[in-house]
Amino acid sequence: IDDRDAARVRELFEDLHPADAADAVEQLVYDQQVELAEIAPEVFGGEMLAELQEDTRADIVNELDPSHLAEAIQDLDSDDMTLVVEDLSPEMREQVLAEVPAADRTRLESSLSFEEDTAGRLMQREFVAAPTFWSVGNTIDHMRKAGEDLPDLFFEVFVVDEGFKPIGSVPVSKLMRFPRDTKLADIMETPHAIIRPDRDQEEVAYLFEKYHLISAPVVDDDGRLSGMLTIDDIVDVIQEENKEDMLALAGVNEASSADTVWSSVKARAPWLLVNLGTAVLASGVIALFEGAIAQLVALAVLMPIVASMGGNAGTQSLAVAVRAIASRDLTVSNAARVIWREFAAGALNGVIFAVVMGAVAGLWFQNVTLAWVIGLAMIINLACAGLAGILIPLGLKRAGADPAVASSVFVTTVTDVVGFFVFLGLGAMVLL
Amino acid sequence: IDDRDAARVRELFEDLHPADAADAVEQLVYDQQVELAEIAPEVFGGEMLAELQEDTRADIVNELDPSHLAEAIQDLDSDDMTLVVEDLSPEMREQVLAEVPAADRTRLESSLSFEEDTAGRLMQREFVAAPTFWSVGNTIDHMRKAGEDLPDLFFEVFVVDEGFKPIGSVPVSKLMRFPRDTKLADIMETPHAIIRPDRDQEEVAYLFEKYHLISAPVVDDDGRLSGMLTIDDIVDVIQEENKEDMLALAGVNEASSADTVWSSVKARAPWLLVNLGTAVLASGVIALFEGAIAQLVALAVLMPIVASMGGNAGTQSLAVAVRAIASRDLTVSNAARVIWREFAAGALNGVIFAVVMGAVAGLWFQNVTLAWVIGLAMIINLACAGLAGILIPLGLKRAGADPAVASSVFVTTVTDVVGFFVFLGLGAMVLL
Repeated sequence: IDDRDAARVRELFEDLHPADAADAVEQLVYDQQVELAEIAPEVFGGEMLAELQEDTRADIVNELDPSHLAEAIQDLDSDDMTLVVEDLSPEMREQVLAEVPAADRTRLESSLSFEEDTAGRLMQREFVAAPTFWSVGNTIDHMRKAGEDLPDLFFEVFVVDEGFKPIGSVPVSKLMRFPRDTKLADIMETPHAIIRPDRDQEEVAYLFEKYHLISAPVVDDDGRLSGMLTIDDIVDVIQEENKEDMLALAGVNEASSADTVWSSVKARAPWLLVNLGTAVLASGVIALFEGAIAQLVALAVLMPIVASMGGNAGTQSLAVAVRAIASRDLTVSNAARVIWREFAAGALNGVIFAVVMGAVAGLWFQNVTLAWVIGLAMIINLACAGLAGILIPLGLKRAGADPAVASSVFVTTVTDVVGFFVFLGLGAMVLL
Repeated sequence: IDDRDAARVRELFEDLHPADAADAVEQLVYDQQVELAEIAPEVFGGEMLAELQEDTRADIVNELDPSHLAEAIQDLDSDDMTLVVEDLSPEMREQVLAEVPAADRTRLESSLSFEEDTAGRLMQREFVAAPTFWSVGNTIDHMRKAGEDLPDLFFEVFVVDEGFKPIGSVPVSKLMRFPRDTKLADIMETPHAIIRPDRDQEEVAYLFEKYHLISAPVVDDDGRLSGMLTIDDIVDVIQEENKEDMLALAGVNEASSADTVWSSVKARAPWLLVNLGTAVLASGVIALFEGAIAQLVALAVLMPIVASMGGNAGTQSLAVAVRAIASRDLTVSNAARVIWREFAAGALNGVIFAVVMGAVAGLWFQNVTLAWVIGLAMIINLACAGLAGILIPLGLKRAGADPAVASSVFVTTVTDVVGFFVFLGLGAMVLL
């Protein structure tokens, strides 16, 4: 690519599976990706664009020629088409929409009318529906006739009533198990989930996971079948949400391997700034006890241990809580018990490490009172850490915020402030 | 349940979907789960046991009666059967195996002969295979005849050669699109992945995700088709691996919402102990500069800020790195560039917060030299944090360990030690 040898690049990409081609592009830095788009736009076929990770795709599609894009997405199912078009800038989007066939344009516009990260954006418009009175034979004949108009891949035939409302589904593998004259009504299963297009994709993913769904019908405001969601798209949603949770817990806004130094700085500086604020706050607590520290430097030597143990115990509780909230294991009905457990587990670990650390500190500084002070501070701080680790994400959730975002900063603020205050305060009271 | 009213409990569970029943059981504490197993074992049907989370299932199956279990798993596909039986204690396992029909026993024993967390454990023995020369019509007729022996749900027919080696697959939805006389050989697709049973489940999940697979053939040592993996089981693997990564990063061994106080303590204390060791090490660094702190208490007030900012920046790099390794975005070919980026991003954030914190410290303590010292320490520590955040998980990965486990403890050790040493060392040199 650096030689701008278009022929060679084309050759390299030619035999790759779209998913492998997408992986290869993701290994490049942003500038190389742009250059590749300039010298060999043919590399960016529709399927490959759909395989790219969201942020890479958002970068690259705006570098491509609108007519190339309009052509590239031609053969995609409508859900993948939406995926490619949704990241375009408004002007680009208009140009691409102007060049696709009218039927595709209508579908795209209707998909794009739903909010980002909802079922409406994810669903595909191609699906197979059959009325209840059809037999297995009718359905198979219909599919043979429909041919090209069917989705590339599907797993269930949705059974609809006269109002085109989905009232059941028949897995394709079941369809083939029964004689041609069996009525669909006799073998259909009640759908576990009928999804509205404005439903958040995270909730949809949860339903798929819980009921082991392979596909699910999406209905419009009148309850009429209007689209279908399939598990392969949901797997991407699950991975995206997991990545978001993990990065959010660590205080990173977004990340991709193509990120430059500058975009990494931008994604991380905001949370470092918040952390700086809370660290200064904790320092303010230390400053309250300057006199005590000047008299007994051992306090300064030991204070980070209390804070660090609290921070660690808090992060443990937090990770468990965020995960339990995400997997719906932590609910209103068991919240009280889990809060109590986190508090008790924190306190109990506090007792264990109070003994260990008390012994270490007592021997190190030959001071029994100091050992009692650090032990007591440890118990109090670890109990608070357990509480903060569960109450903060629950509070964020109740306030309608993402329980992962920023919660670790809040938790360590609590454990730093409590840790320094209790340890130095007790020390100043008892030792001086 | 607390009233031990078996009839009422049975009634409550009767109409629930197995997934909902499993969720309800997971909301109970361990003692209640055991009690439920005693008073109403019928609640624990085969499908419901398969839906339980792994750790809950492991607890509960050993409380059930072996003959009840043997009967409950009767109607399950072989993959779910394995799931239930693998968590049994050795004696229980033997008793259950003795009571299931011989055909099931052979299958179970062969599945259990593979290591945990491999494709061999996950695969199901029921699948549909067809020779290349069959037509679409032959295949459909075969399936109609096979009836009950087919898997509950399947998505592809695997096409095999004379040696029973999988050489292609036809999605069921495609099968129905072609006339009955079409030969399978003409419409089959080359499989994207043929999986060996000893393959780690995490790698298998990656293949499913990358190629958007719905099912995949598993072959034995001779390359003969011996089983099938389906996406619904893979979704569970993905969630399990994500949960493990997130908890490992936070230093928790395992967690479920049914955990008692004591099991939480056991899952967390080991990493807290490691953290205590590293915190004492960091304190040792501080102790080197006791004299300097006694002379200038401002050093003690400010030192946690340098350490905390480093710890945060390191955790950010670490989360990005662990995620990139898990999703195969961080590979040998781009490692050098990503390492450089993390270092540079850390240093650049260091410069930004050196200026901010320098100003704050200078104003607070009316000391320009102190401002320079904390600024310089901040730059060095954040650059080291960036490096540690990427090099430690890469090193663990290369050593064959899980890059998430324990890496945050190592990273914060580096940032604490470097932070205290550089800040106090510079302070002692320049200010006294």
